[in-house]
Amino acid sequence: MDKVRLGMIGGGSGSFIGAVHRKAAALDACYELVCGAFSSQADNCQQTGLSLGLDASRCYADWADMLVQEAARPANERMQAVSIVTPNHLHAPQAIAALKRGFHVILDKPIAMSLVEARAIQAAAQASGCNLALTHTYAGYPMVKEARQWVQQGRLGTIRKVLVEYPQGWLATAMEQLGQKQATWRTDPARAGAGAIGDIGTHAAHLAEYVSGLRICELCAELNSVVTGRQIDDDAAALLRFDNGASGVLVATQVAAGEENNVRIRVYGELGGLDWSHADASSLRWVRPDQPVQIHRAGEGYLSAAATNNTRLPSGHPEGFIEAFANIYRAFALVLQDNAETRSDTLASNGHDYPSIAEGLRGMAFIEAMQASAQSTQKWTPVKL
Amino acid sequence: MDKVRLGMIGGGSGSFIGAVHRKAAALDACYELVCGAFSSQADNCQQTGLSLGLDASRCYADWADMLVQEAARPANERMQAVSIVTPNHLHAPQAIAALKRGFHVILDKPIAMSLVEARAIQAAAQASGCNLALTHTYAGYPMVKEARQWVQQGRLGTIRKVLVEYPQGWLATAMEQLGQKQATWRTDPARAGAGAIGDIGTHAAHLAEYVSGLRICELCAELNSVVTGRQIDDDAAALLRFDNGASGVLVATQVAAGEENNVRIRVYGELGGLDWSHADASSLRWVRPDQPVQIHRAGEGYLSAAATNNTRLPSGHPEGFIEAFANIYRAFALVLQDNAETRSDTLASNGHDYPSIAEGLRGMAFIEAMQASAQSTQKWTPVKL
Amino acid sequence: MDKVRLGMIGGGSGSFIGAVHRKAAALDACYELVCGAFSSQADNCQQTGLSLGLDASRCYADWADMLVQEAARPANERMQAVSIVTPNHLHAPQAIAALKRGFHVILDKPIAMSLVEARAIQAAAQASGCNLALTHTYAGYPMVKEARQWVQQGRLGTIRKVLVEYPQGWLATAMEQLGQKQATWRTDPARAGAGAIGDIGTHAAHLAEYVSGLRICELCAELNSVVTGRQIDDDAAALLRFDNGASGVLVATQVAAGEENNVRIRVYGELGGLDWSHADASSLRWVRPDQPVQIHRAGEGYLSAAATNNTRLPSGHPEGFIEAFANIYRAFALVLQDNAETRSDTLASNGHDYPSIAEGLRGMAFIEAMQASAQSTQKWTPVKL
Amino acid sequence: MDKVRLGMIGGGSGSFIGAVHRKAAALDACYELVCGAFSSQADNCQQTGLSLGLDASRCYADWADMLVQEAARPANERMQAVSIVTPNHLHAPQAIAALKRGFHVILDKPIAMSLVEARAIQAAAQASGCNLALTHTYAGYPMVKEARQWVQQGRLGTIRKVLVEYPQGWLATAMEQLGQKQATWRTDPARAGAGAIGDIGTHAAHLAEYVSGLRICELCAELNSVVTGRQIDDDAAALLRFDNGASGVLVATQVAAGEENNVRIRVYGELGGLDWSHADASSLRWVRPDQPVQIHRAGEGYLSAAATNNTRLPSGHPEGFIEAFANIYRAFALVLQDNAETRSDTLASNGHDYPSIAEGLRGMAFIEAMQASAQSTQKWTPVKL
Repeated sequence: MDKVRLGMIGGGSGSFIGAVHRKAAALDACYELVCGAFSSQADNCQQTGLSLGLDASRCYADWADMLVQEAARPANERMQAVSIVTPNHLHAPQAIAALKRGFHVILDKPIAMSLVEARAIQAAAQASGCNLALTHTYAGYPMVKEARQWVQQGRLGTIRKVLVEYPQGWLATAMEQLGQKQATWRTDPARAGAGAIGDIGTHAAHLAEYVSGLRICELCAELNSVVTGRQIDDDAAALLRFDNGASGVLVATQVAAGEENNVRIRVYGELGGLDWSHADASSLRWVRPDQPVQIHRAGEGYLSAAATNNTRLPSGHPEGFIEAFANIYRAFALVLQDNAETRSDTLASNGHDYPSIAEGLRGMAFIEAMQASAQSTQKWTPVKL
Repeated sequence: MDKVRLGMIGGGSGSFIGAVHRKAAALDACYELVCGAFSSQADNCQQTGLSLGLDASRCYADWADMLVQEAARPANERMQAVSIVTPNHLHAPQAIAALKRGFHVILDKPIAMSLVEARAIQAAAQASGCNLALTHTYAGYPMVKEARQWVQQGRLGTIRKVLVEYPQGWLATAMEQLGQKQATWRTDPARAGAGAIGDIGTHAAHLAEYVSGLRICELCAELNSVVTGRQIDDDAAALLRFDNGASGVLVATQVAAGEENNVRIRVYGELGGLDWSHADASSLRWVRPDQPVQIHRAGEGYLSAAATNNTRLPSGHPEGFIEAFANIYRAFALVLQDNAETRSDTLASNGHDYPSIAEGLRGMAFIEAMQASAQSTQKWTPVKL
Repeated sequence: MDKVRLGMIGGGSGSFIGAVHRKAAALDACYELVCGAFSSQADNCQQTGLSLGLDASRCYADWADMLVQEAARPANERMQAVSIVTPNHLHAPQAIAALKRGFHVILDKPIAMSLVEARAIQAAAQASGCNLALTHTYAGYPMVKEARQWVQQGRLGTIRKVLVEYPQGWLATAMEQLGQKQATWRTDPARAGAGAIGDIGTHAAHLAEYVSGLRICELCAELNSVVTGRQIDDDAAALLRFDNGASGVLVATQVAAGEENNVRIRVYGELGGLDWSHADASSLRWVRPDQPVQIHRAGEGYLSAAATNNTRLPSGHPEGFIEAFANIYRAFALVLQDNAETRSDTLASNGHDYPSIAEGLRGMAFIEAMQASAQSTQKWTPVKL
Repeated sequence: MDKVRLGMIGGGSGSFIGAVHRKAAALDACYELVCGAFSSQADNCQQTGLSLGLDASRCYADWADMLVQEAARPANERMQAVSIVTPNHLHAPQAIAALKRGFHVILDKPIAMSLVEARAIQAAAQASGCNLALTHTYAGYPMVKEARQWVQQGRLGTIRKVLVEYPQGWLATAMEQLGQKQATWRTDPARAGAGAIGDIGTHAAHLAEYVSGLRICELCAELNSVVTGRQIDDDAAALLRFDNGASGVLVATQVAAGEENNVRIRVYGELGGLDWSHADASSLRWVRPDQPVQIHRAGEGYLSAAATNNTRLPSGHPEGFIEAFANIYRAFALVLQDNAETRSDTLASNGHDYPSIAEGLRGMAFIEAMQASAQSTQKWTPVKL
C-alpha cells in the first residue's frame, strides 16, 4: 500500500503537539511527510523541515503558498493530506483553504472558534469531497474503544450516570506571563476562543458521548478564571443531562495544581459500570453488583476487534499517547488509501473510526452551551446544534 | 481511667451499624456496654443483649423505659452515655429524651429529619449540659485528619477547588421491594427523610468542610430517583460554592452499580493538592507543581499529632472502618472521662475531635438546600443555617 | 455465650503486640480480660492493668505467681486462657507452665526457640488437654482464607510456583544500639533465637503453606546480618521445594530501607494464579490465561464461607490488622466456648480455623532448616520435622 | 541530520519483534528502512517489504545475499546498519557477517547461543570498527535510566539488596505443540539455546546490573521445565551475590499462568530503596525510612537529563514499550550519525546510552552460570566472563 503523502501546517520548534502528530504519522508507516509550513518564521520552518529530512524546496514559510505550490505538483508527488497543528483561531481558515484545494485534513481540536466556523468547514468538506479527521486522542485508546463496545453490546444495561473528569495543573500559575508559548496562546481569547473547556473540556465531552453513545442535551455549568489576571476560563464543571434521560457530571480544570493529565471516565448502567483512566490506559475496569471486579487489558485475546485493531503489542507491553494518536492517523489513512468512503463503515466497525466534522460540531455546541450556561441564572441550558 | 458505661438504642439482629458501634466502643477499652434497647421486639432485644454478655435485667424492650430505669440506678452503676443507632426519624425524639435524662449521646448521622429537629436536639443538649457525638466516620480516619492539618498549615495555599464523591451501587436495584431491612427504611421518606443525600451526601459534605476548613454557602443540585418506583432520591450531584470563593463538585450516588463504598476527596489550592480515598484509607497523596508526588502513610513518624493520636499501629499494619469509628468513640470518651469540656479544645487540637451538633446542623442545612435546589429552576440556592 | 476469661503475660507499657492482642480479644466481645502479668516491673504491671480496668488484685508482677493464684480461684471466676506476648525465649517455659495448670494458651509466634522446645509445648498440651493458638496473623485475613479455598477447590489446578515475600525496613539501621525496646530483644540471639527468619520469615513460610496447602520439604537459603555489628540475621532469602514438586522463592528482609510491612504471596498453578498483598488486604487477584483479571473483594456475597465468616462489614468498608488478629481470637474462643474439640473440624471448615502447635512445629523446622542451609555449601537442605 | 539507512534480517509476517524494531526505528525519524531479508521464504519477504514501501529490488530472500548486494551499492545509498531479529541461533553468524561487510548491527537479545559465540561477535566488531546495539528494551525506559542515576548519585547509599523478577504466563501451556511460531522456536534448544533464562532472565539480569551499577559475581540457581514434554527451561530462580557484597534474588518464569509481562526491579541501600515496575513504567517509587514515599514521574522537570532525554511528552502522557525501544534506536543513531565514538561517553552521560557487546557478554555469562548452577549440588557458582 502506498504511503499517504503528508504536509503539515504549524509544529515548528517550540510546538508540543506538532511532534506528536509527526511521530503518530510515522509509527505505522502509513504516511510519508513530504512538506511543511511549520512556522511563519522562515528560519524555523526550514530548520524544522531539514531536520525531518525534507527537501528544502518543500519547506514553506507561508501555509497558503504551500497549498498553492503543492496543488501544482504532479498528482503522484504532491501532498495528499495536511495536518493542521496551529492555534485554534487558524483552524477554520486553514482547513477550509486546504479542503478547497482538494487536500484531506487532519486537524487538532477544538475544530474552530465557533459553531459558525465549524459549519463553514463542514460546507467546504462537502463541496470538495475531502475527508477530515479531528484528533480527539483519547478516543484512539484501545480500551476506550472497548468501553464503547461494552455499552453498545448492552453489557451495562441502560445507561444512568456518566462521570467524566479532566484534572490538570499546568495552568495553576500565570504561566502566560512568563512567556511560555503554549500557555500564551491558550489563555488568549483571540487565539484560543475557549480556555479549559476548549482545550480539555471538549476532550471530556467527546469521551462522554463516544463511550456512552449518548448525546449531552442540556447542561448546567460553572466557568471560572481562577488565576488572577487570566482572561479566559481555566476551570469548569457542569451537571449534564443526556438524551436518554441519564445524568452526568463533567469536571475540566487546569488549576488542579500538581495533577498531570489524568482524564477519566466512568459510566454506570442498570447492570454495572465501567471505569477508564488515562493514568492506567491499558486497563478497563468492569464492576457489577455481586460479581468480582474485572480488569480487561489491552492486547488480550478476549477483547473486541475495535480494541484489538488498535493495539500493536501483546498484553503487558504498554502503548501510550503516541500510539493512541497513531490509531487515529492509521484509521484515516485506511480510508484515504482505499479512496473508499463507502467502506468506512466497515472500517469503523472494526475500530478504524476517527473523530471528524460531526464530532467537531458537537464540540463547538458544547463550548457554546457551557459559555451560555455560565452566564445564565437559569439552571439548565440546552446544547444546540 | 474508668470505662464509660454505655447503653444502646437499636442495633438488634439485622442491624448493620449497631455492631459497628459496639465494636468501636470495645476496641480501646474506653466503654463498657451495660444495657440496651436493641429492638422493640422483646425477643430480639433479650437475645442480642444476652449474646453480648449483658444482664437480662438491663435488656429493655422499650427505649423510653430504659432511659427511666437507668436514670433511677445508682450513679456509679447507671448508664452514662447512649448510642442511638435507629432509623433517622427516631433520632430526634430519642436523642432529646436521652439528653433530658442527663445521658450523653452518640448518634448516627444524619442528626435528624430536618433543621428544625436538629435545633431541638441542640436546645436539649444545651439545657442538659450533656455532650453529643455524631458519627461522621470518615472524619475519624487518621489520614483525613492529616489532610485537614495540611490545609490548616497552609500547605496547599488558598483553596480553590474541592472535589468530593461518594459512589455506591447497593441501591442500583429495587432492593427495598425484596424486603432487605436496610434498604426498606432507607428508601422510605417517612423514616429516612432524605435518600442518597442523607445517607452518603451528608458524609461527603461533611468531609468537604472538615478537610477544607471552608463552608459550603451555595449549591446547584440535581436529585434523581433513578430506580423505578423508588420514593426517595438515590442519586445526587451538585456544584458547590464555598465561603472563600472556592468552587467544588459533589457526587453522591447509590446507583453506581457495582461500586462499593469509595468515598474520595480531593482539594486543590494555589500550591498543590491532596487526594484521599476510602479504598486506600491509610494513604494521603500530595501533589505539587514540579515536585514528585508524595504518599504519606498512616503510622509514620512524620505525621501530625492529629493523625498519630488516631492510629494504633505502626505503618504498614492497616487500620480500617471500625478503627475510624473507634477514634470518634475514644475522643468522646476522653471528654466524658475528664468531665472537662473546657479541655476539649486541647483534645481536639491533638486529633481527639469528633463531629457534634454543629456538624449535624450543617448536615441538615445541606440536605435542605439540596432538596430546595433540586426543585428550583434557578441555578444557585444558598445553604441556610 | 459467656465470654472467655483471659489473662495476659507481657504486654506492658512499651510493648507493641500486647495492645494488639487486647484489642483483638475485645473486638468481638468473646473475651473478658480478667488478669495480667504485664511486666516483671510491678509498677508497669499495676499501671497497665488499672488503665485496662482490672482489679488491682489481679495485676501480678510475676507470671508464675499469676498462674498459681488464678488456678486457685473458683472455677467460674478464674482465668480460662492466657495470652503470652513475651520475647521468644520465654514462650516455651511460660506456655508449658500455663498448659500444665490447665490454662488454654494464645501464643505469639515463633512458638519457641527450637524444635525441641516446641515439642515440649506439644507434650504439655497433650497432657493437659488444653488448646493453643499461635498468632500467625496473616492467616486471619479473610482474603487469605479465600486464597486457600481457591487452591483447595482446584481453581488454580496443580500448584507449580509459590512466591512469598516479606520486605520490611525497620531494622535497616542499628536501632538496637539506640535502646529501642522492640529492636533490642529481637536482635538479641539469646532472647529472639532467630532474627528476620523468626520474626517475619516464619510468617512468610506459614503463609506459603497455608495458602498452597503444600509443605516445604527442601530449601536453599542465604542468611545475612547486613547491619554492621548485628548479632542475628536481618535478611534472608531461599529457594523452596514443595512436597508436590512445586518450586518457590521466599524473601524475608528487615533491611529493605523505607518499606513498611508488605507481606505478599503469589501462587501459580496450571490454570492460573492468585496474588494477595498486605498493602491491599481486602482484595484478592485472580489471573488466568486469556481471561480478564478478577479482583475479589472482602465482604462480597460471592466469597466462600471461610472468608465471609471472617469479615464483619459489607464490602468497601476496610478491615485491617486488628480484625485479622481478632479472627484468630474469635475462632479460638468458639472452640473453647463449646468445649468441643470434636467440633473444631466443622468450625475450621467454616473459616474458624487458627494456627496451632502443628504450625508452630513447622515454623521451628523452617527456622532450623534455614539456619542449617545458610551454613552449608550444599545446595539443598531438607526441612525436618 | 541524515537518516540512517536501515536494513532488516527477519521480521516477516508472523514475527512479533520485527514490527517493534521497525516502529521504534520510525518513531523519531532517525532511520529510513531501505531493504530487508524479512524471511527465507521469498513470498513473505517480498510481501512484507512492499507493504512497508520498499523497492522490490531491495527485498532479499536471502540475508547473506542482501549483505553482498547492499555492500556493492554506492556509499550514499547503501544500507548503513542492519537490525537482526531472528531466532537466537542465527544471531552470531548473521551479526558477524554483517560486521565483516562494514554494517553496524542492531541485535535482539540474547546476543548469541554461547559466550564463545559472543566473543566471536566482539572480535568481528573490533576488526570492523562497527558498532552494535543489543536491544535490552527495559534499559530504554526513562524511569529505569532515572533509577540508575539515583544509585550513581548515592541517593540510596551503599546497595545491599536487589530484587528482580520477570513473571510471565504465556508458556504455561505447551503452546509449542500447537504450532505457535514464537513458542516453537523459543522452546527449541537448537534455536533458542536457553529458555526462560535466555528470553527474559537476561533482561532481568541486565536490569539488575544496569540499575544497581553492580555485577553479579556468584549465583545459586534452579531451572525447571515445568510444562510436560518441554525440552528447555521455562522457569528459573536464583539467589545472587554482587561484587560489592550485596545479595539479591532473581525470578524469571514463563509459567506464571495469567501474568502478562511485568518485569520489576527493587533496589535497597543503606539510605532507602527504589521500585520500578513495567506495569507502571512512567513512575519510579522512592522509599526512605521515616519519609513519605515519593513517586517520580516521567516527563517532569525534576528528573535527570538521562530520563528527560528519553522522554518525548509532558508528564501524564504515557509512553510505552515502543518508545523505550526507540530510545535505544535513537541513541544508536546519534552515535552513527556523528561517526563519533569518541563522543559516545558524552551521549551516554546524557542518557543516550545503549546496551552493546559488553552487556551481551555478561548476558551469556549469566546464562552459562545459571545452567551450570542448576546442574550443580554446590550452592554457589561463579559468573565467569
